[in-house]
Amino acid sequence: MTSEQNAQILLRRRPDAVPKASDFDLVSSPIPLAGKGEILCKIHYLSLDPYMRGQINGRHISGAIHPGELMRGETVSEVISSDDPHFKIGDMVKHQGGWQTYCVAEPKDLQKVDPRIEPPSLALGVLGMPGLTAYAGLLHLAKPKAGDTVLVSAASGAVGSMVGQIAKIKGCRVIGIAGSQKKIDWLNQTAGFDGCFNYKEESPAEGIKRLCPDGVDVYFDNVGGEILDAAMWQLAIGARVVLCGLMAQYNSDIVPPGPNPATIIRARATVKGMVVYDHFDKQKAFLDAATKWMKTGKIKYIEDVSEGLGKAPYAFSRLMRGQNFGKTIIKL
Amino acid sequence: MTSEQNAQILLRRRPDAVPKASDFDLVSSPIPLAGKGEILCKIHYLSLDPYMRGQINGRHISGAIHPGELMRGETVSEVISSDDPHFKIGDMVKHQGGWQTYCVAEPKDLQKVDPRIEPPSLALGVLGMPGLTAYAGLLHLAKPKAGDTVLVSAASGAVGSMVGQIAKIKGCRVIGIAGSQKKIDWLNQTAGFDGCFNYKEESPAEGIKRLCPDGVDVYFDNVGGEILDAAMWQLAIGARVVLCGLMAQYNSDIVPPGPNPATIIRARATVKGMVVYDHFDKQKAFLDAATKWMKTGKIKYIEDVSEGLGKAPYAFSRLMRGQNFGKTIIKL
Repeated sequence: MTSEQNAQILLRRRPDAVPKASDFDLVSSPIPLAGKGEILCKIHYLSLDPYMRGQINGRHISGAIHPGELMRGETVSEVISSDDPHFKIGDMVKHQGGWQTYCVAEPKDLQKVDPRIEPPSLALGVLGMPGLTAYAGLLHLAKPKAGDTVLVSAASGAVGSMVGQIAKIKGCRVIGIAGSQKKIDWLNQTAGFDGCFNYKEESPAEGIKRLCPDGVDVYFDNVGGEILDAAMWQLAIGARVVLCGLMAQYNSDIVPPGPNPATIIRARATVKGMVVYDHFDKQKAFLDAATKWMKTGKIKYIEDVSEGLGKAPYAFSRLMRGQNFGKTIIKL
Repeated sequence: MTSEQNAQILLRRRPDAVPKASDFDLVSSPIPLAGKGEILCKIHYLSLDPYMRGQINGRHISGAIHPGELMRGETVSEVISSDDPHFKIGDMVKHQGGWQTYCVAEPKDLQKVDPRIEPPSLALGVLGMPGLTAYAGLLHLAKPKAGDTVLVSAASGAVGSMVGQIAKIKGCRVIGIAGSQKKIDWLNQTAGFDGCFNYKEESPAEGIKRLCPDGVDVYFDNVGGEILDAAMWQLAIGARVVLCGLMAQYNSDIVPPGPNPATIIRARATVKGMVVYDHFDKQKAFLDAATKWMKTGKIKYIEDVSEGLGKAPYAFSRLMRGQNFGKTIIKL
């Protein structure tokens, strides 16, 4: 078909701290051939997400990526050739394509990108798995009531920004925690948060007390560590906490302790662990709601787009240092 | 009426470790006089409970006991004089009488001991607040299903032994953790537990893995610390954890950290804080069920009874070292 090659990024070694570009290898090989019943996809967008740090550490529930293996990741692709009547050349599909430019897939592993999702990269972010994570974790696990104070960490990320904006739609008072003034400004001025603080400028304990003086009714945690600890001490009676991510400990092999259990007892709190794989049954309800919210301007988003597969290791390193601004996407 | 005096035990100083008898003062004063509408009670049984350690540290949700103040505690008493038509001389009542031999009370603060509770000291133990704690925490917060593996710490205590026995009634497999062979034997041979281990002889991580190889569906925690941490790493998918007591940290001013939040995420667990004061509406349902279970031999109990108010400081010290065997009661 073409003399073009398939570029791939493999894990070179398990990083013991924040991943660096040198922890990965860029290799090329012939474009794979699709067999009987299979589909050849050209990848247009690759999603980079914090959970990948757990995969390359060998401790994510989705399984490990070992040195020498292709990096995995969710992608949006264009169908190049198809031996399945359900998929036509030119269709946009979402799948686990990995960190590469071409991919052969079976029809059962592909999902057509809903035409309401525009641009299609949003199928990897606020209208994709991160959005569903926010929707299911907030509405089905935390169950906020109008008037509740909802606190969210990593607030300008794909999950955090959706948590906050959905909570606003549900009539809550929303407080965000982020790590730069640029993120804070976007949350306050564009995403409509009621208040935010920069945890690099103000201690989490002080920031949370200042902005949630009557306590936190719902805390949606994407980070763990010191921020989780501070939030737990400021819970209101009957608080609900959703534990969704552990950015604070992904870059370390040490498993640090967590908050004292007295924080849960004193607040009669309910703390729940969130894994999005348990909530795929809510995908349709989520997309119906979220595309409507987006159309009516109730949901804003930011994407942090890098062009070219070769940028993926560096973009991943930035993401794991919290230096991204919005959903990290590699445009191929 | 009598030349007898009212003996009282006051807190002398806040202990900084396990309380000693010398942290308390025994004083005597005239028996108080009941005023208009009031009732004079002669205390027969005083309950000693771990939560009192938090009160004398000033960090229990029920409020602090300060040096020089009377020690508080739940009691069963006999009405000696009454200026209220609802209470007659000789009635047995339950109330917050404190660590003393006589007490003047207002009718609204007294509750008649249900005649089904025999001996009446059980109104302070398995048929009282500890029993209600177990009943509400297990059935309303943890909601065990038949076949679930239910793990409980401080298993031979008033709360723990009721948790295990109610879980057995509900068709669960019940594993207990306790600190002496005598306790283990009672749990296995009398209380009908399916398995137990002594955390002083076997590490909590090993004991829990050995006895709950397929994971823990419900963990009812009365201790915190290392045992809680070990249980959290062995949770089954969808596990429920009730946090009810923190024996491991009551004797220290240091607030130690808790389990890593990854334990909750990986199990998609639900962790709830239990405070019995929120569950007094279930008192009647609890007593109806528990007195029936006791009558049919489904509930066994042990009481650790010391005679004489002067023994209370020593008995409290033993309790806080885990050296009691069953519900700690002072018989006056």
